[in-house]
Amino acid sequence: MELENARQELIKLQEKLSAYDHALGLLSYDGETTAPAGTADNRAHSMAILTEIVYTVSTGKDTVELLEFLDERKEELTDRERRMIYLLLKDIRFMRKIPMDEYVAYEKLVVESEDVWRKAKGNSDFASFAPYLEKMFEYAVRFARYADPEKDPYDYWLNEYEPGMNQAILDGFFRQLRQRLVPLIQRVANAKQVSNACLKGDFAEDKQEELARWLMETMGLDTDRVGLSTTEHPFTTSLGSHLDERITTHYYREDVSYSMFSVIHEGGHALYDTGSDGDLAYTVLDGGVSMGIHESQSRFYENILGRSPAFIRYLFPKVAELFPEKMKDYTWQDFYRAVNRVEPSLVRTEADEVTYCLHVMIRYELEKRVMAGTLKVRDLPGEWNRLDKEYLGIDVPDDRRGVLQDSHWSFGAIGYFPSYALGSAYGAQILSRMKEEVDVDGALEKGDFGPVNEWNRQHIWRFGSLLTPAQVLENALKEPFDPKYYLDYLEAKCKDVYGL
Amino acid sequence: MELENARQELIKLQEKLSAYDHALGLLSYDGETTAPAGTADNRAHSMAILTEIVYTVSTGKDTVELLEFLDERKEELTDRERRMIYLLLKDIRFMRKIPMDEYVAYEKLVVESEDVWRKAKGNSDFASFAPYLEKMFEYAVRFARYADPEKDPYDYWLNEYEPGMNQAILDGFFRQLRQRLVPLIQRVANAKQVSNACLKGDFAEDKQEELARWLMETMGLDTDRVGLSTTEHPFTTSLGSHLDERITTHYYREDVSYSMFSVIHEGGHALYDTGSDGDLAYTVLDGGVSMGIHESQSRFYENILGRSPAFIRYLFPKVAELFPEKMKDYTWQDFYRAVNRVEPSLVRTEADEVTYCLHVMIRYELEKRVMAGTLKVRDLPGEWNRLDKEYLGIDVPDDRRGVLQDSHWSFGAIGYFPSYALGSAYGAQILSRMKEEVDVDGALEKGDFGPVNEWNRQHIWRFGSLLTPAQVLENALKEPFDPKYYLDYLEAKCKDVYGL
Repeated sequence: MELENARQELIKLQEKLSAYDHALGLLSYDGETTAPAGTADNRAHSMAILTEIVYTVSTGKDTVELLEFLDERKEELTDRERRMIYLLLKDIRFMRKIPMDEYVAYEKLVVESEDVWRKAKGNSDFASFAPYLEKMFEYAVRFARYADPEKDPYDYWLNEYEPGMNQAILDGFFRQLRQRLVPLIQRVANAKQVSNACLKGDFAEDKQEELARWLMETMGLDTDRVGLSTTEHPFTTSLGSHLDERITTHYYREDVSYSMFSVIHEGGHALYDTGSDGDLAYTVLDGGVSMGIHESQSRFYENILGRSPAFIRYLFPKVAELFPEKMKDYTWQDFYRAVNRVEPSLVRTEADEVTYCLHVMIRYELEKRVMAGTLKVRDLPGEWNRLDKEYLGIDVPDDRRGVLQDSHWSFGAIGYFPSYALGSAYGAQILSRMKEEVDVDGALEKGDFGPVNEWNRQHIWRFGSLLTPAQVLENALKEPFDPKYYLDYLEAKCKDVYGL
Repeated sequence: MELENARQELIKLQEKLSAYDHALGLLSYDGETTAPAGTADNRAHSMAILTEIVYTVSTGKDTVELLEFLDERKEELTDRERRMIYLLLKDIRFMRKIPMDEYVAYEKLVVESEDVWRKAKGNSDFASFAPYLEKMFEYAVRFARYADPEKDPYDYWLNEYEPGMNQAILDGFFRQLRQRLVPLIQRVANAKQVSNACLKGDFAEDKQEELARWLMETMGLDTDRVGLSTTEHPFTTSLGSHLDERITTHYYREDVSYSMFSVIHEGGHALYDTGSDGDLAYTVLDGGVSMGIHESQSRFYENILGRSPAFIRYLFPKVAELFPEKMKDYTWQDFYRAVNRVEPSLVRTEADEVTYCLHVMIRYELEKRVMAGTLKVRDLPGEWNRLDKEYLGIDVPDDRRGVLQDSHWSFGAIGYFPSYALGSAYGAQILSRMKEEVDVDGALEKGDFGPVNEWNRQHIWRFGSLLTPAQVLENALKEPFDPKYYLDYLEAKCKDVYGL
């Protein structure tokens, strides 16, 4: 094989994988958005076949030979090529270390486990799910040891989901969060609660959709390339490349804020993905690099910008124009306080900005202890409920709204949760850096996302997955990550909203 | 290779092709329905790659060896397997006879030609399209000669698009149509025109959609497996298998009938496709067998059932319920006459049931003469306009609404049009046969499509592509095809509507 030829093959391989990715992504998107209710089995049939083909293409003999050939000639390649090869070889090298029979058994378990979890959640019946969850944790430990015998298994997975992460960093991170957030929530609980009455009522879906599309335009999404659909749970997906992005939302007639902030959140993911440099399209370097950095963008737009007084002041007249009867009794300040109401609640995905990270922290503490062998799976519900009480001050009435609420563990995503909290905290530090160069509030008051987007594009988006998450952060922050920014931000927000 | 093994490989090959078909069909459907406006290039990128892969899978060495191996052991196989192998080998054998460089040049021409046609149509500029169309006809002749040197080239293509067809049959068919339809249209022109005022007005889109979904339910579509979307031009597509079918429509606010009859037409296609026996799914035998049989179903539901007095009597109260203000001045008889109004017009796709086949006949006569070398492409517009005047009695004001109106010739579909007329005529003969066993009007008056659907399922749908079109017709009709049924039907309809 000649080097020049191999380099071209490397590009072709990625183009092929992008096309399959487009097809599989679209099949899944169609299932969530448009497909008739009875077509899931038919779709699963096609997806299973295509998934198997993708597996063969990405890990087959020809591919491995090509990648190893190039990997041995690293010094003759560009940084971009080296990064491509690293990312393409990563999963192959992992897979090679896992005995095939164990991997097949694991894949089978995942399918069963998700199904059992779904039923267990419906019935608040942790006992039926516990044996599956035990096996999930066992596999997580075993596979991590196969992959990297030197590394602590939980550290292995933390680093997988957010490259650069480990328990030492996260212990410090969550300790700081706990020290300041738990008392902050206590102070808010003792203050006079703010009203969210302006968000509740009967909001026609077509008006909510008009608002959603207005928000997409306002936040600077290129709606020629970013589509909006409705699904049960909102999500964002790239199809084929960052040149076709879809976000989804869900309209609740009785609550105007849900879809609004969903759209801004998913819009943040979409801005990040679609902000990749054009020449990254159809390579593995296209689109956002990690969950943590992704959430730093989505939660930045949703909360830090979207719930800021500057933006709410700009937004409120639009809301009032669409829902004049409802909003005539309220001011933008009422709306601002309502969307920033803090109230400990049971379910992570419905949590407000201040209590959100404590939900994540509970999951981190628990999975860390189970991974270390110091907590049994069967004792998870009790510990979950105890921590919910300790950090959030609430009693968990059943496991459905407690330890069974999230799907992640059921499909083996152990070590994934911390990224949600990290992303939130990254965002606050990004804001602080950005403000040195950009008049953020001044721009938002005019509904002008241009300067903010431009800063993010230059410092974060354009790199796609070319840089590691750590490099992206370093580039953007010019100093080490420090959760103090986030805590300062949350305390200031509570001070403003609750007059603490 | 062992026979048993090869038979299993045959099934696997078809499953793989179905999965790719699903992906490509969905990419195309997404482009027509949901995708943001600026994403066509990105989609084309993925589709080009997947199309190339499908080409390799369907015509590659392994596939050819497998199919030839099985083909040599025909007598040990089932009818189903023989039919699968025939259909899978058909295109491969055709391709082998075409010199590769000519095929590549042709493919390139198709892409350019469609583009040139689109612009030429916009500008009513036939001259700019003529050189491309000349080459298209040249390729049609040359490729037909490569494929089957013994056969008349036009016969070759007629048989490709509707297996079993040739000019001898079609000459007779169109002669009979001309003899009775041209004077019939003349008689209608001399009669008092019926009003279509009840169809024109301002019809809210959501109400039209409600009507569309009601029609789908009424005609017996399984809406758990058949979806409805909106597109510029209505169409029907199967995704992966007949277990996921999508139809589309277009709502015109000013005309309530367009979407209504589109939905019934596409619904007819969908009934046929989804009526395949379950075990045909994921094989090349799944779904309708030919354009002609497909149109026999779609036009049967749209016109023969959909515009019948029995069904309109059942339908009208629903239309009146949705549009009470508009319909309060009309009766079901007014509505019946309106949807059956006959009026020679310029554009085939907007033609009524009676004049429709004459549009097709004009195209048949012209392409037949060009293929035979007795008409030059440059003389097509003049001949087109002359025939439009002779058969339909109208003057063609420009080529946009004349010879340039259809896209088919631009992408090389020469010999395709007759299927549209054949399908219409098949339908009338099917009705006649069906009425020997089913009280069609009695069922339609009650909005009960059950008995009609069951007859079609037993005689036509369930076979998918297992039988040839000729076998399907023979099965259903129990006598040779005869256009007399169709002409009798049209004359009776005009008699009823115009009191001739």
